[in-house]
Amino acid sequence: MALDEAVLRGHSEAQILSVINAGLALGGARSTDVLVGPGDDTAWLRVRSGAALVTTDAMVLGRDWRDDWSAPDHVGRKCVAQNAADIEAMGGTTTALVVTLVADPATPLAWVRELAVGLGREAARAGAVIVGGDLSSAGPGVCVISATALGELPDGARPVLRCGARPGDVLAVSGPLGRAAAGLLLLQEDRAADGPELVGYQQSPHPAYGDGRRALEAGASAMLDVSDGLLLDAGRIAQASGVRIDVHTAALAPDIAALGAVGDRGTDCVLRGGEEHVLLATFAPGDEPTGWRVIGAVADGTGVAVDGRDTQGGGWEHFTVQQE
Amino acid sequence: MALDEAVLRGHSEAQILSVINAGLALGGARSTDVLVGPGDDTAWLRVRSGAALVTTDAMVLGRDWRDDWSAPDHVGRKCVAQNAADIEAMGGTTTALVVTLVADPATPLAWVRELAVGLGREAARAGAVIVGGDLSSAGPGVCVISATALGELPDGARPVLRCGARPGDVLAVSGPLGRAAAGLLLLQEDRAADGPELVGYQQSPHPAYGDGRRALEAGASAMLDVSDGLLLDAGRIAQASGVRIDVHTAALAPDIAALGAVGDRGTDCVLRGGEEHVLLATFAPGDEPTGWRVIGAVADGTGVAVDGRDTQGGGWEHFTVQQE
Repeated sequence: MALDEAVLRGHSEAQILSVINAGLALGGARSTDVLVGPGDDTAWLRVRSGAALVTTDAMVLGRDWRDDWSAPDHVGRKCVAQNAADIEAMGGTTTALVVTLVADPATPLAWVRELAVGLGREAARAGAVIVGGDLSSAGPGVCVISATALGELPDGARPVLRCGARPGDVLAVSGPLGRAAAGLLLLQEDRAADGPELVGYQQSPHPAYGDGRRALEAGASAMLDVSDGLLLDAGRIAQASGVRIDVHTAALAPDIAALGAVGDRGTDCVLRGGEEHVLLATFAPGDEPTGWRVIGAVADGTGVAVDGRDTQGGGWEHFTVQQE
Repeated sequence: MALDEAVLRGHSEAQILSVINAGLALGGARSTDVLVGPGDDTAWLRVRSGAALVTTDAMVLGRDWRDDWSAPDHVGRKCVAQNAADIEAMGGTTTALVVTLVADPATPLAWVRELAVGLGREAARAGAVIVGGDLSSAGPGVCVISATALGELPDGARPVLRCGARPGDVLAVSGPLGRAAAGLLLLQEDRAADGPELVGYQQSPHPAYGDGRRALEAGASAMLDVSDGLLLDAGRIAQASGVRIDVHTAALAPDIAALGAVGDRGTDCVLRGGEEHVLLATFAPGDEPTGWRVIGAVADGTGVAVDGRDTQGGGWEHFTVQQE
């Protein structure tokens, strides 16, 4: 099949699936836990620990990415990364994903192939395989990708929930903050060249897989991934745990300094930027794993404060933000 | 919150989720296998047999349903039913689902609540629970629901695949065929009153959960659910198993007779109608469980025949059929 000019319209599902499977295969992921892979009514997956972590996340063209800003392999990588980050945030390891693609029949087949390449590559990075999916047509301009990730915990372990933070714990983060939000600003201002690394992180975050498991093993008392902004996500831990969390901006100085390309908006990107997918967790003081940074403290009370001052949080909301 | 006038726009995700969770709860499903339910980064689900069946299916407004033909609870039920039917088709029992909803902010909140009621009710029928989901906004007129179902086999069992049919087996079906397709014709012709049961089956099929497990226990050699039409789906067994399947129309006379409302198109509905979600399986002669009907035979060769005459199959294709 000549891919360069082809679109989905006019191709059978078998033809399209063969293109997708070829793309996925480039990721090179293999797993002995896949007992039945794609092609039957369902996949069949060994679950060694006897319990599965399950999460799902959708991506929408025009909401979660723009085709003039993100190549299809970025979109595929991001789709896997944001699901796998949720598995990490429980202390788990991603084992498998299923993906549905709902797309305008005018979508280029080459775009779909590169999407599959991105899905397959990021799955391989996470140590997981794509074990199935579904394909459906939609109206003009529509492209929705929905993925479900499955994962496992170490034998005998329980997941790190949001509700376990205790007064006296420290708040720690597994990586830099604000990059995805700053990258988005640069794209919006047509200044991608001013911060290609930030833009790259917006196009597809690359979580450090294994951070979640290390946090679990270090005794993290609460954890999630920063998907909707530090303050909003910290607020989720505070609310679930019935504690107050104080974020210390002095500890965020390196994050802010790295966002010079967006000027004085760096602080806002660090405090409120979503799609970061680093992990945010609480630990007994000194228990945070190597590579994690303490950026705040847990106390009696409610809500989130910045340097002792109460905040309303703020972060990504799908339906309260005016988007058109 | 006054639901009657409200739409998604302007509501926080927490508000919308509380509406959805209230709807789901009406289904009344409970499970002791849900170790961590909705509300954290992932769910955590006990997998007693040590292996999970996994499948995913998307539904698209304007493709898979029309709002003037289907109430939101029909849509929710159908979404669960078509995923759970895939689990049944392996011989399994559905244990849990996750669901993503991608919707125009102008979608009424009451519609979303009733969708959740349908999801919860059909999940309960299947013996499963909804353990998580994701919510995202989309452009005008867009509504996409994507579900992933997890299931399990009886301890020590292996799934019934499509590839095990052997020459000499019989082809059998677990229920009536053609109802969903006939119902669709009646809706398209604005004659719903001429066949309310057929229309009801199109709006939301109600698989007989447990049929798949009984087929597995009876030694089914190959199985799938009729999602894209009898001939096309029989062709999938034939291809995967390297056999020829002959469908006997005499055995389909009761199915056709029940579709009198669509006149002489009944045969086509029975042979080619999709969305039926009854099970199609092959067995050694006489091994088919009570309630299953023999409708054909497996022989050496390739392809699907009807009363000994070769056929090209034909069934639902998303991208080769002209839809606008």
